Amino acid sequence: MKKLINDVDNLLSESLDGFATAHAGIVTLGPARQFVRRQTLKPGKVALISGGGSGHEPLHAGFVGHGMLDAACPGQVFTSPTPDQMLAAAEAVDTGAGVLFIVKNYSGDMMNFQMAAEMLDRDNATVIVNDDVAVENSTYTTGRRGVAGTLIVEKIVGAAAERGDDLAALKTLGDAVNTATASMGVALTSCTVPAAGKPTFAIGADEMEMGVGIHGEPGRRRVKLASADAIAAELTGAILKDLSLKAGQEVLLLVNGFGGTPLLELYLMVNAVHKVLAGTGVKVARHLTGSYVTSLEMAGCSVTITAADAAMLALWDAPVHTPALRWGM
Amino acid sequence: MKKLINDVDNLLSESLDGFATAHAGIVTLGPARQFVRRQTLKPGKVALISGGGSGHEPLHAGFVGHGMLDAACPGQVFTSPTPDQMLAAAEAVDTGAGVLFIVKNYSGDMMNFQMAAEMLDRDNATVIVNDDVAVENSTYTTGRRGVAGTLIVEKIVGAAAERGDDLAALKTLGDAVNTATASMGVALTSCTVPAAGKPTFAIGADEMEMGVGIHGEPGRRRVKLASADAIAAELTGAILKDLSLKAGQEVLLLVNGFGGTPLLELYLMVNAVHKVLAGTGVKVARHLTGSYVTSLEMAGCSVTITAADAAMLALWDAPVHTPALRWGM
Repeated sequence: MKKLINDVDNLLSESLDGFATAHAGIVTLGPARQFVRRQTLKPGKVALISGGGSGHEPLHAGFVGHGMLDAACPGQVFTSPTPDQMLAAAEAVDTGAGVLFIVKNYSGDMMNFQMAAEMLDRDNATVIVNDDVAVENSTYTTGRRGVAGTLIVEKIVGAAAERGDDLAALKTLGDAVNTATASMGVALTSCTVPAAGKPTFAIGADEMEMGVGIHGEPGRRRVKLASADAIAAELTGAILKDLSLKAGQEVLLLVNGFGGTPLLELYLMVNAVHKVLAGTGVKVARHLTGSYVTSLEMAGCSVTITAADAAMLALWDAPVHTPALRWGM
Repeated sequence: MKKLINDVDNLLSESLDGFATAHAGIVTLGPARQFVRRQTLKPGKVALISGGGSGHEPLHAGFVGHGMLDAACPGQVFTSPTPDQMLAAAEAVDTGAGVLFIVKNYSGDMMNFQMAAEMLDRDNATVIVNDDVAVENSTYTTGRRGVAGTLIVEKIVGAAAERGDDLAALKTLGDAVNTATASMGVALTSCTVPAAGKPTFAIGADEMEMGVGIHGEPGRRRVKLASADAIAAELTGAILKDLSLKAGQEVLLLVNGFGGTPLLELYLMVNAVHKVLAGTGVKVARHLTGSYVTSLEMAGCSVTITAADAAMLALWDAPVHTPALRWGM
């Protein structure tokens, strides 16, 4: 295992310390590093809290700040944070308007966030993200997995929270964005969980995992490495089938790297996805390209499409100032 | 070789097309994809042009936009662009105030940018970036290599150009930023140039290349993989020795990933560098952390420190709106 670390046991805490130091103007660490929160809260605004296993950076802590999350609870690598963390985060960032939890649909996260929601003596609601169309049920999931679409939910709902929408409206919006969003990914290599010290899965030099999850869990099938165009056709095809888009529909396109794939290839994939969409009448109104929802150093990418109405696009464009996404201010 | 591509020969052009599509609000492609330029020029502003081999994305095209470059000329992977490209870019983006070329110190780039500068019938000057303290002379270099410090030169000089500084002042400032900047990197794995189809160098499972260049070229020595703290001590130590910083000096710290290293590890390295700096009296006034000057999918990172005066810090903070860096607007 080749990683820039000191001790596997301290990897997360040392990384969080570096993160908090690097972004001290935006975020601060909670006691015992239970959560990352905004430096400055906005009284009366619904508090948005997400979290999950580490190893997907910049998700989620990289999206804490103006226009997105109020707090993020980091678990160990690929391990859910605990209810204690979510409760501590809620106490720290709720200014009285209630708490919206944004949770990726994995069994561990679901159980722990649900427990926190039940224990929390404050108004709260939960948006569950399950955008991955690759498989129904999986290694860590009942139902579909939550993957890169999570950042789109966090951005759009975050902008609505910033303008003052109430908890019920944000819950409705978050569910709507999740329903309008579909993703699918492919892995060319495995990642290595530091505590395990060896690759999560074995894959041949000429193979790829089509429909892979963001923990390296199995997708639809293991196949021979194909061209970017063929990969784009399969990923985008599965997404279009799921969303049943009509000609003229405006969409947001996220081409997301899993951590080990160069931007050169991600932009080539943007081009490849556009070739697939060219005949469909679907119009890409907004782009985001980069490694935002990662699986450590896994090579590969995912495609996410959100069928966005004008209101969602306006919220997407709204100012955001976080460690990983900044625009409009 | 596992990459998201269709045909090695079209990799760059397909990627540039995707890039231009994804960032159509900011950049546009020149004829025959000779350069990437700003969508909107600012008359009377000195034109900043950089470029170099591809494979280092987001450098340079990702830094075209308000507050940084006016144009970037992409060569094939790890191959200099041609003088024709620089001349075409200069004709396209110079509005009469002259052209400043920002060139990384590699023999191919130096020769081609110098040829363009001599052929160009417009006022021009060149800032050469040679921030890599690892080695004097190297595979592709007479003198020191230009590496991640290039983005700091482009940002600070870009901000000065935006406020209206003239060509002579920008040349002086660019040279000053380069002199105030030092970098050193380490590789844990090799990258694979698509046209070569195999790793650039062989490296053992327990080895790292200390002082590696951004094309995977040799550094100071091949050694056993060490802890993040030990790596940070060696990289930072070499930089501090080069810059001869006094206690109280404010610096800008860039921890840069080479493409295959997760953010989790890069932030851990930020923390490790801070531990090294703790005893020195050097104050980190600004941070940038991420994969900005890459070597395809190489795992590893570099540390860059700029001894920044108040004027440089103000220019660093000035608004920027490019595909890869955005803040303050």
